[in-house]
Amino acid sequence: MNYGIVLKVLGNLLFLESALMMPSLLIALGLGEPDLMAFVITVAFTMTAGIVMSRIQVKKQKMKVREGLSIVTLGWVVFSVFGALPFVLSGSLNFVDAFFEVVSGFTTTGATVVTDIEILPKGLLFWRSLTHWIGGMGILIFTVAFMPTLGSGTFHLFKAESPGPTADKIAPRMKDTAIILYTTYIVITLIEIILLKLGGMSLYESALHTFGTVGTGGFSTRNASIGAFNSTYIHLVIAFFMMFSGVNFSLYYKAFKGKWHEIFQNEELRLYLGIILMSTLAITLNLRFSVYDSTWTALRDSFFQVNSIITTTGYATANFDLWPDFSKSILFLLMFTGASAGSTGGGIKIIRILFLFKLIRREISKIYHPRAMIPIRIGGKALSGDINVSIASFFALYIVAFVGGTVLISLEGHGLVSAASAVAATIGNIGPGFDFVGPTQTYANFSDPSKLLLSFLMLIGRLELYTVIALIVPGQLRERVFQS
Amino acid sequence: MNYGIVLKVLGNLLFLESALMMPSLLIALGLGEPDLMAFVITVAFTMTAGIVMSRIQVKKQKMKVREGLSIVTLGWVVFSVFGALPFVLSGSLNFVDAFFEVVSGFTTTGATVVTDIEILPKGLLFWRSLTHWIGGMGILIFTVAFMPTLGSGTFHLFKAESPGPTADKIAPRMKDTAIILYTTYIVITLIEIILLKLGGMSLYESALHTFGTVGTGGFSTRNASIGAFNSTYIHLVIAFFMMFSGVNFSLYYKAFKGKWHEIFQNEELRLYLGIILMSTLAITLNLRFSVYDSTWTALRDSFFQVNSIITTTGYATANFDLWPDFSKSILFLLMFTGASAGSTGGGIKIIRILFLFKLIRREISKIYHPRAMIPIRIGGKALSGDINVSIASFFALYIVAFVGGTVLISLEGHGLVSAASAVAATIGNIGPGFDFVGPTQTYANFSDPSKLLLSFLMLIGRLELYTVIALIVPGQLRERVFQS
Repeated sequence: MNYGIVLKVLGNLLFLESALMMPSLLIALGLGEPDLMAFVITVAFTMTAGIVMSRIQVKKQKMKVREGLSIVTLGWVVFSVFGALPFVLSGSLNFVDAFFEVVSGFTTTGATVVTDIEILPKGLLFWRSLTHWIGGMGILIFTVAFMPTLGSGTFHLFKAESPGPTADKIAPRMKDTAIILYTTYIVITLIEIILLKLGGMSLYESALHTFGTVGTGGFSTRNASIGAFNSTYIHLVIAFFMMFSGVNFSLYYKAFKGKWHEIFQNEELRLYLGIILMSTLAITLNLRFSVYDSTWTALRDSFFQVNSIITTTGYATANFDLWPDFSKSILFLLMFTGASAGSTGGGIKIIRILFLFKLIRREISKIYHPRAMIPIRIGGKALSGDINVSIASFFALYIVAFVGGTVLISLEGHGLVSAASAVAATIGNIGPGFDFVGPTQTYANFSDPSKLLLSFLMLIGRLELYTVIALIVPGQLRERVFQS
Repeated sequence: MNYGIVLKVLGNLLFLESALMMPSLLIALGLGEPDLMAFVITVAFTMTAGIVMSRIQVKKQKMKVREGLSIVTLGWVVFSVFGALPFVLSGSLNFVDAFFEVVSGFTTTGATVVTDIEILPKGLLFWRSLTHWIGGMGILIFTVAFMPTLGSGTFHLFKAESPGPTADKIAPRMKDTAIILYTTYIVITLIEIILLKLGGMSLYESALHTFGTVGTGGFSTRNASIGAFNSTYIHLVIAFFMMFSGVNFSLYYKAFKGKWHEIFQNEELRLYLGIILMSTLAITLNLRFSVYDSTWTALRDSFFQVNSIITTTGYATANFDLWPDFSKSILFLLMFTGASAGSTGGGIKIIRILFLFKLIRREISKIYHPRAMIPIRIGGKALSGDINVSIASFFALYIVAFVGGTVLISLEGHGLVSAASAVAATIGNIGPGFDFVGPTQTYANFSDPSKLLLSFLMLIGRLELYTVIALIVPGQLRERVFQS
């Protein structure tokens, strides 16, 4: 393996990270918070490491598959390890907890081990929420897009980080695609900050909750999450921006270009909105006829929670763990569907769900027309057999990872619903689950091995399984397919 | 649709069913049980209906797909409706409960609504257990194999009833295949009856528990299931015969022909036995270090329960609902894997699980060798792309049915574990689940709509989804694949 190129890219990443920590340092400085020194040390250390590593002289600039997979996986791990330092150095969390919290941040999961968020210093809280914003769009796309020397390997890295079965190249050049995506992201971010500020939230909290929303992360500054803000306006702004953040970002560029027809015809968007509508109505009815007295409140909380879960954000305005089974089972299901491909959300992604339904429908048609050749089409395009099998295997691997994780977490002994929902909520990058990990609970009481396992699940969920798993499966096992 | 041919085959089925009820009638007569009249009326009515329908003059003997699907689906429903009559006429159960119980019997599920089994009259109990034995091998294979006039459509019916992605034609002629399978089935049945009798069980109970074992059904004559027999010998005989009944029956024919090499090389058998071994060990350890004092008892109960669940039988020697989460989560998982293709067991089937793991492994290899054409091989044979997609879509549809069923059953409000395990245990044809449907509970307290839904799930599980679902999906929806 070409270790030089891997270290060099990681060095660039660390340099970027030290720059991204500067706002938190400045906030700690400006407000005279006790976490200032933690940031000063971390920034100095991270920047030095970044500069040293990025100056490594590399003979061969070319990357092969193995280097690409290593850069993505190690990049996320190293980013998280350095990102955890401010929590450790400020004495707020031990290393395992800090690592869990930061992986949860960068992967936009939003699962927390902090039992009292409100006592954290403001610089640290800012960094905690900013990790969502950074991780939402991906950490490599930014670094790599501006390192032209890597050549064709760049697209592979971009693909590994961008959610969904195929990576949309909006513009022919990677760099232009990155610029378009980031511009969209920044515009949406600014609009939400302004709208929240107009609703009476402080600028600081507006920014932090916006990071949690547009990155579909879910970290709040309050122990009661969004429920702490007793304002229907704020609930609705966040609900709608969660929904917007679960849409394929390339559609916003299409809207900007005036291609409205393409947007209305987008099958994934239609299914996404359809699922939100149906789930909201089903849960509203269920709530109205059980625990809620007011239809309007039921509708508002249901709409908020459906968007929060389907986009894999994880904010809460109500303790949905106390809702009836039917509502909970729908939310559980939405943990798996996830948001759209090319959004900041996690989960299996709506487009893969759409594909599965089309696959099932085709199989039924084939019973009646056994000799017909029927391609599966999404957006009018016929998918190749290779992509069919690839999507199906993603689905299978997702289930395998979910099941394997649940069996291991069940060793904690907090009940099967706790285990299954903790795993679904981490691999799907949601955050809160049910019961032991319900919206009023934290992940603090898990053992260290379980916290590390859950961190691993967040990571493979964010990188859509194959990037990480292809790297860790032994070559011998991989290559056996050629022999049997 | 050719209604004539459908009615004619159903008539033959009913005639067969009336004959199969004769032993129960004779037992009721011989023992002077109060259910005698119920059987006399049912047999007379069923036989008359069968004779009338089978005499229908049919112009066209040929079956198309639609007739085939209708015969299989209606065949199972009609068989169950008539099979439920003795329960209703004897005043033991109302119609919905009786239908549930008999569908549970024929589909070899073993879920019961009878809270006190031990007070049922002996003829009825015999019929209840015999439904497992009949359903294990399939109700149509026997009827249709001896109706040569149906021609090529016969294989389609055979395929619909035989578990697994491909139907093994052991012999070139359907009739010979049916004779070989039934001979094997009868031999295994007789051996187990003898072994149980030698263990001190009465002949009546030996026969009934054998029907429940070899059909992988799970109905017992005792409220405490196999736990009522305080004999390690009996526990082990039943555990091993459950294991044997979860093996592809064509392997027994190969053993008879001395083809041992083919048996040892059989990948599905190896994975099946490997999963049983690993699960037994994991659960034994978990039990030993939690609720059990003796390693031997832990091993014995673990081995019994693993075989009971993986083969989808559902017998219990211990209340596994009280076992620790880790053991329960493994059992939950085994509810999905199910037994081997071509056995009497249900679930997804081991061969499909094997395929999924190979699919995942191939996908990982493809990341390193993007241009390599790697077929998936099972037993040395490369699977066609069509079969790949077909197995993947089966897996997807299974999950969709499981999830949809769970959401609907969650309306009962007995907790998510109860809902999910009730659905997994019925669609997988297991019987008992966890919590509200645990091994010491029954399905009696579900509402009528839920009982009918669960009956439907048992049926689609037994017929492997597509047969029933292809029939009920509207043609318009099916055909849309040709337009988009």
